[in-house]
Amino acid sequence: MRRIRVIGIGTGNPEHLTLQAVRALETVEAVFVLDKGAEKADLVRLRREICERFVPKPYRFVEAQDPERDRAPSDYAAAVEAWHTARAALYEALIERELEEGACGAFLVWGDPSLYDSTLRILERVAARGRLAFAYDVIPGITSVQALAAGHRIALNRIGGPVHITTGRALARGLPPGTGSTVVMLDGDPRFDHLDPDLTIYWGAYLGSPEEILLAGRLGEVGSEIRRLRAEARARHGWIMDTYLLRGPDAA
Amino acid sequence: MRRIRVIGIGTGNPEHLTLQAVRALETVEAVFVLDKGAEKADLVRLRREICERFVPKPYRFVEAQDPERDRAPSDYAAAVEAWHTARAALYEALIERELEEGACGAFLVWGDPSLYDSTLRILERVAARGRLAFAYDVIPGITSVQALAAGHRIALNRIGGPVHITTGRALARGLPPGTGSTVVMLDGDPRFDHLDPDLTIYWGAYLGSPEEILLAGRLGEVGSEIRRLRAEARARHGWIMDTYLLRGPDAA
Repeated sequence: MRRIRVIGIGTGNPEHLTLQAVRALETVEAVFVLDKGAEKADLVRLRREICERFVPKPYRFVEAQDPERDRAPSDYAAAVEAWHTARAALYEALIERELEEGACGAFLVWGDPSLYDSTLRILERVAARGRLAFAYDVIPGITSVQALAAGHRIALNRIGGPVHITTGRALARGLPPGTGSTVVMLDGDPRFDHLDPDLTIYWGAYLGSPEEILLAGRLGEVGSEIRRLRAEARARHGWIMDTYLLRGPDAA
Repeated sequence: MRRIRVIGIGTGNPEHLTLQAVRALETVEAVFVLDKGAEKADLVRLRREICERFVPKPYRFVEAQDPERDRAPSDYAAAVEAWHTARAALYEALIERELEEGACGAFLVWGDPSLYDSTLRILERVAARGRLAFAYDVIPGITSVQALAAGHRIALNRIGGPVHITTGRALARGLPPGTGSTVVMLDGDPRFDHLDPDLTIYWGAYLGSPEEILLAGRLGEVGSEIRRLRAEARARHGWIMDTYLLRGPDAA
């Protein structure tokens, strides 16, 4: 049976790899990378560097073009659904073509496979299609949320309090009530105008990498500076990945 | 100046250590472990094993007794506050006594220092007291939340949906509205009676370790089995650490 390892590689720092991930890379004969376009070339390069450094056997680095996704759908969930179906067909074809029976391949996932990543959902679909027999396991990795907290040297939660992780899309509808600490991911254009300026923001971009940028402060004071820094960095690199934590005053 | 590394060590599997953590351990001369009582002896032993394997220099393994904490306080936040103040005084004394000027020490934190761990808050207090000059940094580690998701091979979030991380104490007041995926940590006595039996639960204990137990299913069907397994495992080991994800039906 073919074997797939879904490996979280952390965020931009090869040293984020766990020993478990290094051990897993020692078993692979093919590494699958789904290219999401030119702006992600740096991210593909980091995966390639990881392979060069940690895969001891001759291996195939399999790059493929991700299916096109409707970027302004009328029905968001349906568009994502259609996109995942197309990706399942692609993954199935890649695994079948690139791995012989009994061989082992890996998907290298930015951050951790459990957070805003579709690899596991797609592999579940491939398995459900029933055309291809394969086993798979998951090796967790450091997320940008953890790299953000480490960079700022803070706990995400207030004492005993909850942590809410959400997306820029959901934040546009405002902060959920009663959540003292909210982490926002996948925010392509952070706008803070509709939020309480007295919130504290902890922001970070290119977390874990040598290009890491960190900024924290009262949202009303640093919000526009974050937007400025972000636009400038995005222009310089051609892409940006960033995340932030919003926190109200400590109830304690 | 003295230097402190706050290192996330993951959950029960030494292979959860990142390369960054291994590198950090190579620099330390003392490792601080705050013993929380006999039931945590296994957790101290795991830290000791990590040190034996990864700290190359002669080092001191400094165990200390954590200050007593009021377990049934009338004011939860105030009790935690008093406890943290006592811990700050203890940490300060340990660092001063066990590390010479210029020496490097480490706190090994279960999981990740950013989630339901007080080490960073305490070090911030020690720094704020102003009696002891020291630098510190944070090295993220795999959390039990990630180990849970990896064990079950699932994403925590629904497509584009939020993830809410909370405590057993907060869950006693019910699930927060509108959160499709809720992770519950620090639940010393999970009771599911007040929750919708149609929720799906993904439960895990001793995550990442050889003793790992996983169970998932409809809450109404597996809830009592989880309580039974949990009580049995706790009696056998003398302690338990577990966490679970609750999910409503997929809106998509």
